[in-house]
Amino acid sequence: MPKSVLLTGAGGRVGEAILGELAETYDWRLLDREPLTGDYLGKSVVADITDEAAVGQAMEGIDAVIHLAGDPRPEAPWDSVLRNNIDGTQTVFETAVDAGVDSVVFASSNHAVGAYETEARTPELFRAHDGFRLDGTELPRPGNLYGVSKAAGETLGRYYHDEHDLSVCCVRIGNLTKGHPPIDYERGQAMWLSYRDCAHLFERTIEADYGYEIVYGISDNDRKYYSIDRAREALGYEPQDNSAAHD
Amino acid sequence: MPKSVLLTGAGGRVGEAILGELAETYDWRLLDREPLTGDYLGKSVVADITDEAAVGQAMEGIDAVIHLAGDPRPEAPWDSVLRNNIDGTQTVFETAVDAGVDSVVFASSNHAVGAYETEARTPELFRAHDGFRLDGTELPRPGNLYGVSKAAGETLGRYYHDEHDLSVCCVRIGNLTKGHPPIDYERGQAMWLSYRDCAHLFERTIEADYGYEIVYGISDNDRKYYSIDRAREALGYEPQDNSAAHD
Repeated sequence: MPKSVLLTGAGGRVGEAILGELAETYDWRLLDREPLTGDYLGKSVVADITDEAAVGQAMEGIDAVIHLAGDPRPEAPWDSVLRNNIDGTQTVFETAVDAGVDSVVFASSNHAVGAYETEARTPELFRAHDGFRLDGTELPRPGNLYGVSKAAGETLGRYYHDEHDLSVCCVRIGNLTKGHPPIDYERGQAMWLSYRDCAHLFERTIEADYGYEIVYGISDNDRKYYSIDRAREALGYEPQDNSAAHD
Repeated sequence: MPKSVLLTGAGGRVGEAILGELAETYDWRLLDREPLTGDYLGKSVVADITDEAAVGQAMEGIDAVIHLAGDPRPEAPWDSVLRNNIDGTQTVFETAVDAGVDSVVFASSNHAVGAYETEARTPELFRAHDGFRLDGTELPRPGNLYGVSKAAGETLGRYYHDEHDLSVCCVRIGNLTKGHPPIDYERGQAMWLSYRDCAHLFERTIEADYGYEIVYGISDNDRKYYSIDRAREALGYEPQDNSAAHD
């Protein structure tokens, strides 16, 4: 029997990448603030991520959660990321524990570490010859309040793993684009995540055994300053794409 | 002319330790939710830390902020730490930048890393022969939601330093007790902070030059699993007390 997976924020771009490849792989429950369009399989739930009762109900009988919901704007104001991203993520972890869910996969972001891109390091940082790597063990350095909210979500995950024995994987998602990497945008090429690598990576977060992980979600780009070693080791991630192949 | 320093949460125990030694050292402005009693010098302001306008007003003409205000209970519920500790701390950093304040010292906590105290490590961790040390470069591992809120405050500080050029020092305060260390409580002895070491440490956070720092706030205890090396190096901290002297 396929695992039952709750996907929050299912109507966004990451949800599109995941469902595009894995629609038949799991028994999906799809949650979004807006009614979903298109021909997604599974039961769709319309609810705000801050609605504790509705989120709790959506968790019933669920094996794993992929939590994408939140304000996705890097320039989002504090009040919005406080409510939607920080408080909303706490609601997801708390209700997952209450419902006996096994694992929660949290969509973190490159913006949690955006301020490592200092003036002194860029643009060299984005080029294939540059050896600087973040690997997920470094302290967050957000370049915006959205990134602060994502780092806070990671710490919430650490707490819910340590104290409530939930398996938690935080994926610092790079630059997800469909078809080909961003053009004339070195930063985006360095953190490109193709749709199929995205779907494969999230499939691995559902299938692998782990306790608490922070991994980078990018394709196997020649240009990179995020290590994908941990995603390979902990999850068995085997990306097929490389932004250099599109040069 | 002495520096003008805003002390938030001035009526708490850390405030008592600081003002007990440094009442005459700075031109204090004292902010608390409750009217302050006793003979503290300086101008006292009664305001909630989440009151953006009042906090902004209290910042006017201030050189440095020591931000202690927040729900201090390790068992505090999420709604309270979200509002008082996370949102309240964002208000302090944001209004400090707007007011042109030079530095903000943030009262973080040992609870930001409490879950490093695993069953396998304790009670050995609290004993003098044990070599395990946290030094402030490790990722947070909170053992409660209060600790999550303190870790979030540290990340907010990182952001306001990187993006707004504010000097920020986060002090992970240990177990502050007056007169002598906790009795028959190894954990408390390992993270003891005496009143005079506390006052001296916060004085150093006002006097030293730094960019962004995370330091542990404990006395020079024989028992310890927090390193005070960074506090010595970055701030010139020279503690005088040691919980072992009271055995």
